[in-house]
Amino acid sequence: MKSFLDATAVAVRDETYQATLDAQWSVGGRLHGGYLLAVLGRAACLHAGQDHPHLTAISGSFVQSPVAGPAEVLVEVLRHGRGLTQVHARLSQDGATCVEALITLGVLVESDSWWTAAPPVDISDEQDCVPTAPQSPGGDFAVPLMEVVEQRLDPRHLGFVEGAPSGKGVIAGWQRLTDGSDWDPLALLVALDPVPPVTYDLGLTGWVPTLQLSAYIRRLPAPGPIRFRMHAADVTGGRIDETAHIWDAKGRLVAQATQFAAVRHPD
Amino acid sequence: MKSFLDATAVAVRDETYQATLDAQWSVGGRLHGGYLLAVLGRAACLHAGQDHPHLTAISGSFVQSPVAGPAEVLVEVLRHGRGLTQVHARLSQDGATCVEALITLGVLVESDSWWTAAPPVDISDEQDCVPTAPQSPGGDFAVPLMEVVEQRLDPRHLGFVEGAPSGKGVIAGWQRLTDGSDWDPLALLVALDPVPPVTYDLGLTGWVPTLQLSAYIRRLPAPGPIRFRMHAADVTGGRIDETAHIWDAKGRLVAQATQFAAVRHPD
Repeated sequence: MKSFLDATAVAVRDETYQATLDAQWSVGGRLHGGYLLAVLGRAACLHAGQDHPHLTAISGSFVQSPVAGPAEVLVEVLRHGRGLTQVHARLSQDGATCVEALITLGVLVESDSWWTAAPPVDISDEQDCVPTAPQSPGGDFAVPLMEVVEQRLDPRHLGFVEGAPSGKGVIAGWQRLTDGSDWDPLALLVALDPVPPVTYDLGLTGWVPTLQLSAYIRRLPAPGPIRFRMHAADVTGGRIDETAHIWDAKGRLVAQATQFAAVRHPD
Repeated sequence: MKSFLDATAVAVRDETYQATLDAQWSVGGRLHGGYLLAVLGRAACLHAGQDHPHLTAISGSFVQSPVAGPAEVLVEVLRHGRGLTQVHARLSQDGATCVEALITLGVLVESDSWWTAAPPVDISDEQDCVPTAPQSPGGDFAVPLMEVVEQRLDPRHLGFVEGAPSGKGVIAGWQRLTDGSDWDPLALLVALDPVPPVTYDLGLTGWVPTLQLSAYIRRLPAPGPIRFRMHAADVTGGRIDETAHIWDAKGRLVAQATQFAAVRHPD
């Protein structure tokens, strides 16, 4: 089993970045969206160089699911400024665009906030939360991602397991990387799209494919587990929004994301 | 004074879309970010055609401020699916990239939510809110945007005018288009980036340039004024996030956005 670092490694060749997408970072037979953004981010960081070593913001459009195996990333610098580098990046496979992203790179430190209105989510202690198994609750599809991410979900949002979803459209819990490495800005992109989607808490168990996802990384996380909360605001016309926040072991907001996804629901 | 429709008009020429950026839609000498996204969105809608006439999601990276006058938009279709079209669009001026965007187009209707956790913000009635003047509170820069958008701000977040910001990082209020036209999905992009930024409510009065902004349009708005609320979660390392929600005259969530912006703050 590859580490996160190895699973997102890219090598330069002819001005593009070659990746080998790893089936381990997948959900129900499809590579995980946050993992794909991390591969794009890895190439962007290499391309931007040491001035701006960290991904601070990324917006991605998911066009087509790539399969595990070789893929390439093309990075174009839009602006190299004093405090940031902005790039456009495209992940393609066999010539077909799979994920397109806009990325802002900069310098992150492990700092306190100058101002914050986002205290850490109040959830049960990690050991009192419920480990997420590497298969769906009904057992009808595999979630290999849950072998590389050790996730525990807060019991108050787990009613769906017993067929009694809360209807609040929330999930929350704790995450660690199974390989024992600490979270970094790129790995946080994986954590920002936790499994299952909040639709489970609304009684909808179908696939919720992400159409667009935007993430901001706010600081370097302290070593240790992270806690997350994801919620939705509205489900209309086959579309849902999901907003995620992540706090590090010191209780500081380290990352946040919103996504726009497709969902099947009754009329 | 041009209508919103005229100010965002684009004409096809040689496979690109020609726009004439209108100085009226600017703040402190710079064209408004939401307005620029609307121009990109207009070109994308024309390009995608009648199957998917509405912009439903857009993520933009702001690379360089264009000036008023001619600009061109290049649109590339990434996927034309059954229920949506995904495109990549670039607004440039004199060959320099100014704004780059990822856009999802689809079909919106004026529907109720299947599920919602976002009731309309509880603010004062429109006539009890305070009109925003077309210059900054200190009068040191002009905000021509406020001549084409009729905005009234809820008094409880206006402490900054008297030098007593609430420190909550919130602004809220009502908006109408001055030309009397109703809100549509593209015009809502302007409304999603209201003036002033929430930093005024934190006692910071400097410029807050948007680096990336992502917006989702959830349904066609009912005729009449919209109400909005924007808040921030965290200010760290010269960066702020701002999240906006907009409800139509029937109290339904019609649009939402997050942005990642630069801000000067004390250490």
